Amino acid sequence: MLFLFISNTDIARVPGLSAAGANADVLPYTSPADADVIRFGRPLSIDCFPMDPDGRPTPAIITRAAVTIADIPICVVRSGSMMAPSAPYVEICSSPGGDPRIAASVGEAKKIFDVASSFAGNFTKDSDNVMLAESIPGGTTTALLVLRVLGYDCMVSSASGSNPIALKESIWRGASARLGIETGGFRNDPLRAISEFGDPMQAAVLGFIAGSKKRTGIVLAGGTQMLAVAACLRAMGCEREITVATTRYVVNDQTASFTELAQRLRVETYSAPLDFSQSPYKGLRDYEDGFVKEGVGAGGAVLYASRQGVGANEVVARTNELYAEIVESYPPK
Amino acid sequence: MLFLFISNTDIARVPGLSAAGANADVLPYTSPADADVIRFGRPLSIDCFPMDPDGRPTPAIITRAAVTIADIPICVVRSGSMMAPSAPYVEICSSPGGDPRIAASVGEAKKIFDVASSFAGNFTKDSDNVMLAESIPGGTTTALLVLRVLGYDCMVSSASGSNPIALKESIWRGASARLGIETGGFRNDPLRAISEFGDPMQAAVLGFIAGSKKRTGIVLAGGTQMLAVAACLRAMGCEREITVATTRYVVNDQTASFTELAQRLRVETYSAPLDFSQSPYKGLRDYEDGFVKEGVGAGGAVLYASRQGVGANEVVARTNELYAEIVESYPPK
Repeated sequence: MLFLFISNTDIARVPGLSAAGANADVLPYTSPADADVIRFGRPLSIDCFPMDPDGRPTPAIITRAAVTIADIPICVVRSGSMMAPSAPYVEICSSPGGDPRIAASVGEAKKIFDVASSFAGNFTKDSDNVMLAESIPGGTTTALLVLRVLGYDCMVSSASGSNPIALKESIWRGASARLGIETGGFRNDPLRAISEFGDPMQAAVLGFIAGSKKRTGIVLAGGTQMLAVAACLRAMGCEREITVATTRYVVNDQTASFTELAQRLRVETYSAPLDFSQSPYKGLRDYEDGFVKEGVGAGGAVLYASRQGVGANEVVARTNELYAEIVESYPPK
Repeated sequence: MLFLFISNTDIARVPGLSAAGANADVLPYTSPADADVIRFGRPLSIDCFPMDPDGRPTPAIITRAAVTIADIPICVVRSGSMMAPSAPYVEICSSPGGDPRIAASVGEAKKIFDVASSFAGNFTKDSDNVMLAESIPGGTTTALLVLRVLGYDCMVSSASGSNPIALKESIWRGASARLGIETGGFRNDPLRAISEFGDPMQAAVLGFIAGSKKRTGIVLAGGTQMLAVAACLRAMGCEREITVATTRYVVNDQTASFTELAQRLRVETYSAPLDFSQSPYKGLRDYEDGFVKEGVGAGGAVLYASRQGVGANEVVARTNELYAEIVESYPPK
């Protein structure tokens, strides 16, 4: 089963940081809309489809394509999204994360961890494998902060065509200055790292893994955001086998350090061989130029589908069809 | 997996009707507390244990005993409970049902049905068997109303030692008079029956069954309340095999017509052979005199345990132990 954790963090409100929420007004709708897209093919609570101003769609469209072809069971987990989705969901937390430059960003991190852990203990009783995905605008920045306080002097990826690295570094400086700590300052305390610097998705996914049965195979479906969760897991002393499944767009991102970081964290990786270069739609062809890249479990869903004999090319073809339907349903205004 | 649907209906506020909520102030807490009991062994959101003024505990204690011995995976589904539990839960609906003498009691019945159906479609993909249980104070009365409008001139059971039949009949007269209909008035429209006369638990459980994979075995864990859901299913033209699992206290209730009704509905039944006559605790021995009887999936949990080789006597012994722990933790005030 594919579990999608939907969340918000106030850090996404910093202008220029998040491509997922093109403006602050739509931020609350983004992750619930993604949940609705993978469940129903379109958002039910808002009358528009999540895409950036240049027509690049949410990667949820790729996940949806894989879900429909490979019949992937999904479960939406609300872990700090400001709005609820229309899709059925598991409630863990409805408070978004705060801005870590101002105050501790996830005051309820321990509680979220515990509830997610309890939930996972039950839901993985009969499951050999689970896949955990995320939708949280601004989540690469909180990933960076957590990786840094855990001691990883790295750079995260971005959904933008040009990674706002300088802005992310300035947020790291502001947040670390608040507590007067440096890289590695919380290397032995991952829950403290999340509660001070992170986001509620991280607390929930970490808790889910901690609470799952030891024999359950875990795939983290995401890019550098999921590596931050894996880093928390290693900081807890957990040496369990983990696969991080992402897309080749993240793996090839020269501004980030996905592969090197994954090796340091001793996690397996999967790089979904997506190729939209022949797509009839510019919004999707732009993925080849590094826009969007990953999210909402897109890479993981391709892996899931491939394990059932469905090729990435089939997922790409279906994604093109879905995009055509969307453009028809939501004409430009 | 055992799915517990927690709900409220305003009809429980009628004095003398519901034993579960001894007074109207605690009604919002009852079903979330039951959810916490089966998950954690005690409620986390309130500082008391659900029992009636004479010390008779919620049947959740039996379910908890079975869950701990037989390692039963559970999932709490919030389908109209006024309060959220502390246990992790799936959100379907947070509005309680209304009083059907005044207005349609479940205005969102169709929406609840659809969301539950969508949820079930996913969650039963990998499941051969699911068990659906309920906790809703006042639920036998809404069961009666729905059974009546579907054409069953029967009587439901009660958690009370003496079934308030006259009161239930007067509520049926009041509710049916509002719409000017008689027994069988909605025999071909079960969703209308629920939306006018029923409760949100019924809409959610019905939707869950409708959305589950056809090959998934369904056990409805409850007494006459679950027969009302089975009646809705038959009214929809669904002839799927259904087992209704309850306790011998419900089966033996001379004021109600469990066995006859089950036969008319063509459902299998299971009667949990619980015996608290030798319990050291009066609160539990009173079950033998027809108090409480069933609820929160108690009978179904005994069935689940028995399928794993755990006898009802073991569940009884563990229930006694849990009761002792509870009395120690919550001394009389």
